[in-house]
Amino acid sequence: MMPEWVILEEGYAEENAPSLGNRFLVGNGYMGVRGTLEEYEADKLPAVNLAGIYDKAGDGWREPINAPNPCYAYLKVDGEIYRLPDREAKSHKMGVDYRHGIFFRETVWHTQRGNIKLWTERFASMSDVHVLGMRYRVCADFHADVELLTGIDSAVWDLNGPHLERLAMKERDNTLLVYAYTHEEDIPVAVAEKVKADFPTQIRTTVKGEKMLHRINLITKPGEEYSIEKTAVVYTGKDCKNPEAEAQRAVEAKCEEGYDALLAAHVERWEELWKHSEVTILGDESAMRAVNYSLYHLHSIAPRHTDSLSIPARGLSGQTYKGAVFWDTEMFMLDFFLMTDPATARILMKYRIDTLEGALKKAAHYGFEGAFYAWESQEGGFDACSDYNVTDVFTGRPMRTFFKDKQMHISAAVAYGILRYVEWTKDITILDEKGVRTVVECARFYYSLLLKHLNKPYYEIHDVIGPDEYHERINNNGYTNRMAKFTLESAVEVLKKAKQNGTLPKEYDAEKLCEEFEDAARKLYLPKPQQDGEKKGVIEQFDGYFTLEDASLEQVRGRLLHEKEYWGGAYGVASHTQIIKQADVVTWLNLFSEEYDVETLRENWEYYEPRTEHGSSLSAGMYAMLACKIGEPDRAYPFFLKSAMADLQAGGKEWAGLIYIGGTHPAAAGAAYMTAIRGFGGITIENGKLVCRPSLPKSIQGMQFHVFYGGQEYEVNIEGNESSVKAF
Amino acid sequence: MMPEWVILEEGYAEENAPSLGNRFLVGNGYMGVRGTLEEYEADKLPAVNLAGIYDKAGDGWREPINAPNPCYAYLKVDGEIYRLPDREAKSHKMGVDYRHGIFFRETVWHTQRGNIKLWTERFASMSDVHVLGMRYRVCADFHADVELLTGIDSAVWDLNGPHLERLAMKERDNTLLVYAYTHEEDIPVAVAEKVKADFPTQIRTTVKGEKMLHRINLITKPGEEYSIEKTAVVYTGKDCKNPEAEAQRAVEAKCEEGYDALLAAHVERWEELWKHSEVTILGDESAMRAVNYSLYHLHSIAPRHTDSLSIPARGLSGQTYKGAVFWDTEMFMLDFFLMTDPATARILMKYRIDTLEGALKKAAHYGFEGAFYAWESQEGGFDACSDYNVTDVFTGRPMRTFFKDKQMHISAAVAYGILRYVEWTKDITILDEKGVRTVVECARFYYSLLLKHLNKPYYEIHDVIGPDEYHERINNNGYTNRMAKFTLESAVEVLKKAKQNGTLPKEYDAEKLCEEFEDAARKLYLPKPQQDGEKKGVIEQFDGYFTLEDASLEQVRGRLLHEKEYWGGAYGVASHTQIIKQADVVTWLNLFSEEYDVETLRENWEYYEPRTEHGSSLSAGMYAMLACKIGEPDRAYPFFLKSAMADLQAGGKEWAGLIYIGGTHPAAAGAAYMTAIRGFGGITIENGKLVCRPSLPKSIQGMQFHVFYGGQEYEVNIEGNESSVKAF
Repeated sequence: MMPEWVILEEGYAEENAPSLGNRFLVGNGYMGVRGTLEEYEADKLPAVNLAGIYDKAGDGWREPINAPNPCYAYLKVDGEIYRLPDREAKSHKMGVDYRHGIFFRETVWHTQRGNIKLWTERFASMSDVHVLGMRYRVCADFHADVELLTGIDSAVWDLNGPHLERLAMKERDNTLLVYAYTHEEDIPVAVAEKVKADFPTQIRTTVKGEKMLHRINLITKPGEEYSIEKTAVVYTGKDCKNPEAEAQRAVEAKCEEGYDALLAAHVERWEELWKHSEVTILGDESAMRAVNYSLYHLHSIAPRHTDSLSIPARGLSGQTYKGAVFWDTEMFMLDFFLMTDPATARILMKYRIDTLEGALKKAAHYGFEGAFYAWESQEGGFDACSDYNVTDVFTGRPMRTFFKDKQMHISAAVAYGILRYVEWTKDITILDEKGVRTVVECARFYYSLLLKHLNKPYYEIHDVIGPDEYHERINNNGYTNRMAKFTLESAVEVLKKAKQNGTLPKEYDAEKLCEEFEDAARKLYLPKPQQDGEKKGVIEQFDGYFTLEDASLEQVRGRLLHEKEYWGGAYGVASHTQIIKQADVVTWLNLFSEEYDVETLRENWEYYEPRTEHGSSLSAGMYAMLACKIGEPDRAYPFFLKSAMADLQAGGKEWAGLIYIGGTHPAAAGAAYMTAIRGFGGITIENGKLVCRPSLPKSIQGMQFHVFYGGQEYEVNIEGNESSVKAF
Repeated sequence: MMPEWVILEEGYAEENAPSLGNRFLVGNGYMGVRGTLEEYEADKLPAVNLAGIYDKAGDGWREPINAPNPCYAYLKVDGEIYRLPDREAKSHKMGVDYRHGIFFRETVWHTQRGNIKLWTERFASMSDVHVLGMRYRVCADFHADVELLTGIDSAVWDLNGPHLERLAMKERDNTLLVYAYTHEEDIPVAVAEKVKADFPTQIRTTVKGEKMLHRINLITKPGEEYSIEKTAVVYTGKDCKNPEAEAQRAVEAKCEEGYDALLAAHVERWEELWKHSEVTILGDESAMRAVNYSLYHLHSIAPRHTDSLSIPARGLSGQTYKGAVFWDTEMFMLDFFLMTDPATARILMKYRIDTLEGALKKAAHYGFEGAFYAWESQEGGFDACSDYNVTDVFTGRPMRTFFKDKQMHISAAVAYGILRYVEWTKDITILDEKGVRTVVECARFYYSLLLKHLNKPYYEIHDVIGPDEYHERINNNGYTNRMAKFTLESAVEVLKKAKQNGTLPKEYDAEKLCEEFEDAARKLYLPKPQQDGEKKGVIEQFDGYFTLEDASLEQVRGRLLHEKEYWGGAYGVASHTQIIKQADVVTWLNLFSEEYDVETLRENWEYYEPRTEHGSSLSAGMYAMLACKIGEPDRAYPFFLKSAMADLQAGGKEWAGLIYIGGTHPAAAGAAYMTAIRGFGGITIENGKLVCRPSLPKSIQGMQFHVFYGGQEYEVNIEGNESSVKAF
């Protein structure tokens, strides 16, 4: 049974434009094109969001570039403009084919003389990432005097723009080109487009403000379809020396190939991706659709066009979160790529290795040694995170937050990612000198954090923020300490291997470092499960957490004075209670579950779940995975669905204080994959061998999927408790 | 030239009642009687504030008791009530004789038939602290039908009351008695009063609500004065077993003695105090008045009636600051008593020794060793400080503050006080086993705070608040670290002496402790003066202080959105700037000035002074004293005057957020004394000898005063640069 592979929205509601822009996004890792209608201008949040190119304008946050929009188009019929939402439609639907990354819309307007229908589709080519293919079709049931206006809209949507200056428009032989430079680093950005009609027409060019448009006129015969193909390309100074010339050249060539040929190559590439990554779920079609739709998003933003780049926390859905890379990549998305597309996993890890310099600088800035990775990483590892990330709704003042300087667990996520990459791919080439240095410098960072009380035998880490961001500047966060220990131990392992492999950087005294790191890992304090009492088995999230008010989520929510007020910070409603933002101890126990008995895992799940606001889309996945590990796949299921549906359903958090944070949720998508494959599917490595110990929830009868391990692709079949793992 | 020794307020303005209540306070260390008019009821803030007896009612803050008010009185003339502010006066003046602690008022009302004048005076006896003496006199220029109503008003002013319950009123032979119990600890409180008239009259008793009153009637002859004496006594369960009986007995006996005799004994005691403490300043009468007026307040609240008690931060002027003892005593008030009244200094230090148990408990509660003294100390060393000391003016929510748990320098103040007591008095009997234990446990507290980074050679103290409370949870506050070092070194000294003197507590391994403390003191990190650059010589107040925005005081003040908003906390206008609340590095350098050259002292004074809001009355004194040490008495002078005038002039801070903090400022009084005697007078100890190196500001030609040192009283005479110190 082939699923439909289509997500559809029928009818039109203007207020849904922002969220549909995320839901129907198409992308190819180079660019993300928001699923907005062609006629939308900046206020409706259209964007051709580019990966890995950033700009800062004035005092605003540094954020990725949205290119001039070559999808822009609208219709005129009998001299009147027909576009949404200005002109109500007789019928409207739009959606995305998430097997092949094709956005489409279909709108019928009633005019005084009859009905006219507009179909469009577009894709961001997976086979040539610079290319956008588009097709517009119109059909009227009368002799309509139609004008299609389409071209490039340079008035892009920006959160903290404008970023493009010295904007130039050019037209040559019906090829439109917009050329501009980024404000901060003067990087050229070129967008070119060209149209072809399948009917005789004269195409003229017009400039309206910041839009350069083709005007294509025709008189329709009743019932006949007229089709226009459009090819656009995007190049920047990050891709080539002369993006203007390159765009000119490429758009001519690609237009020449024609829409159908471009689409075919694109579809073929998608099919290739699905061959390794499609997840078949028997008995639960909606779960299957949600998982594969999640994977669609991960595929659409995977930076396959380069050898060193990572994925922003909101994918390529806009400038939210500054287009920056968070721990989301290593802790939530990496598994999907490790298991279905190891080459992309390598690109993601290479990004961290190549941005070590930025992490060394950040550590030095704060007086630490080693590598303190950016909380919000942009190019070169520059930390885009501000000291003031939230606006106080009561005073309008920026609030000093500590995400940048105290969320110390980020460097451990990098080391964790690299070690997991080596474990799953067995590709140790990543541990060349730079790779070794990356892991060792992360360990040196934690070593330099370690504090010893003169009167205590163990080492502590103070003044951090853990995954639960509602509690700031805490001591001995269990998650952070355990991840630091992991990093110290990993560095020892990597140093020893490097010595054997001849990849040990000259500047290291491996013996001394190993001795220090081993001592540190051994003596690093980890909070232990409570020995007795009503909290028996529960691990305290940080020093003093249990002394905080044990208010219920409803009580705490009831104390809000303003719907957008921040729950955390120094005085937030959650800050002095045990209410947490997201999985914290539960994340730790999920990653290191083998170190605790099932009863302890369960006690912590039971204790923390009702105290978790799940105010981050990262939260549900960790609860889902740990529930699988305590043998409760049915309790995991709703959390799994929440992760898998993060971009399918409205209702996600779109505001933090007064800051817009909407967009896609690739970490939740990754968590959905992990829960399906590792949680329900029970895929794990034991003694260097891939094994499958399924633990399916009631609604799921079986699963089929492929997994890469150690360079080999495996086919996994699960039917109830039975499973097989075969080399493919 | 004898000064007037009177502070007078002429005319009447209702809004001044709270501040005049402070300015004209009379007291004797057992009780403080606010300088309010006899006819005032609770809304005008009258109080008979008792020392060392506390109560907590409901969820309110724990605070000292205000006894039922036996000063209550008002006049009726021809059946009409004459009292302020209800009935406007023809003339009114009130004031205090601050040589002898006598409050007085004189009011003339115009009636339809002529003028009537009321004089009153009262004192809180310095020779018998339970006794309040009062006299009312009336005189009319017509045949007035006068009724004086006077008695005990039980409806007392409370900030967080009511504290007295099961209130009973009794009358026997014209003696009125009010008897009640505190809410929390059921401590009985008794107030009795008795009146005597110098004219024939029948005295009746009446009860009006919570007031029990005598009604004393007379028809005046024109121009003739009629006088009524009133004696009141206060006893509580802290003084004796049966305060009711004791009050009954005492009031009869004291009334029998008569007002004049009681007053004479009281005055004699004051004269005795001034013999040792009066400061004569030649050429600057207003400075002399301000200093002696400051000493008046210190004398009025000195707990001479007991052997172990200290002085609250707002003296005995009310319940502000919970009647609690702060570091103010040791760091600001102690010098005055050391130098003029060593017996009282011993009582103050004994209080700390006797409240060690509370400090041990507090340290243990926070997971530390040794003694962590209460930031706001009540009986037994109970810390009355709340975790929520300030109300957010924007949300009305309590703000989590860290005065209680992070103001770690308090224990050092205790050790500093004890060591200074020994140094100045040479009375080592205070270092009995309990005294030794106190100092050593303070050192053990700091030892348990010490942190060592694995990769650094020195010890640090993290997460504290220094004297500048606007910057919370900082690392390596120079003042705190230096005081911790002092405490560690002092403990070594005390341990060594105790071993010689046989006062070493058995549980101590003196050798091991000395070794640990010496190591800790040696390696404890102290920020050093900047080596070069534009901040050359300046010491950073805490780690990272210099990275904060260097905004001016005016800029920061200009950012206020609400006049009562708190400048500190996590998001206050000062928190992320270099604007500080009060002297911090300057306090450190003042205490340890011999460790730095004058240039360094000067650089720090110059750097920090313009960045100091002086939002605490403790601030000016430290700037004044350090200015003297850098040879700039004229720059010290305005700060000295500010300290000396703290209770003489209106304009002090009366609000912290939404909390009322008005009252007297004994720490500022103490600072004024220190600046006069040690700053201008240049009194210091060199090689065990009292020396005088005067450094007078322009307006002061000479000074004369007495100073105790090592049990010997000295007379000091200064004329210009000439000075003499003679045993007296």
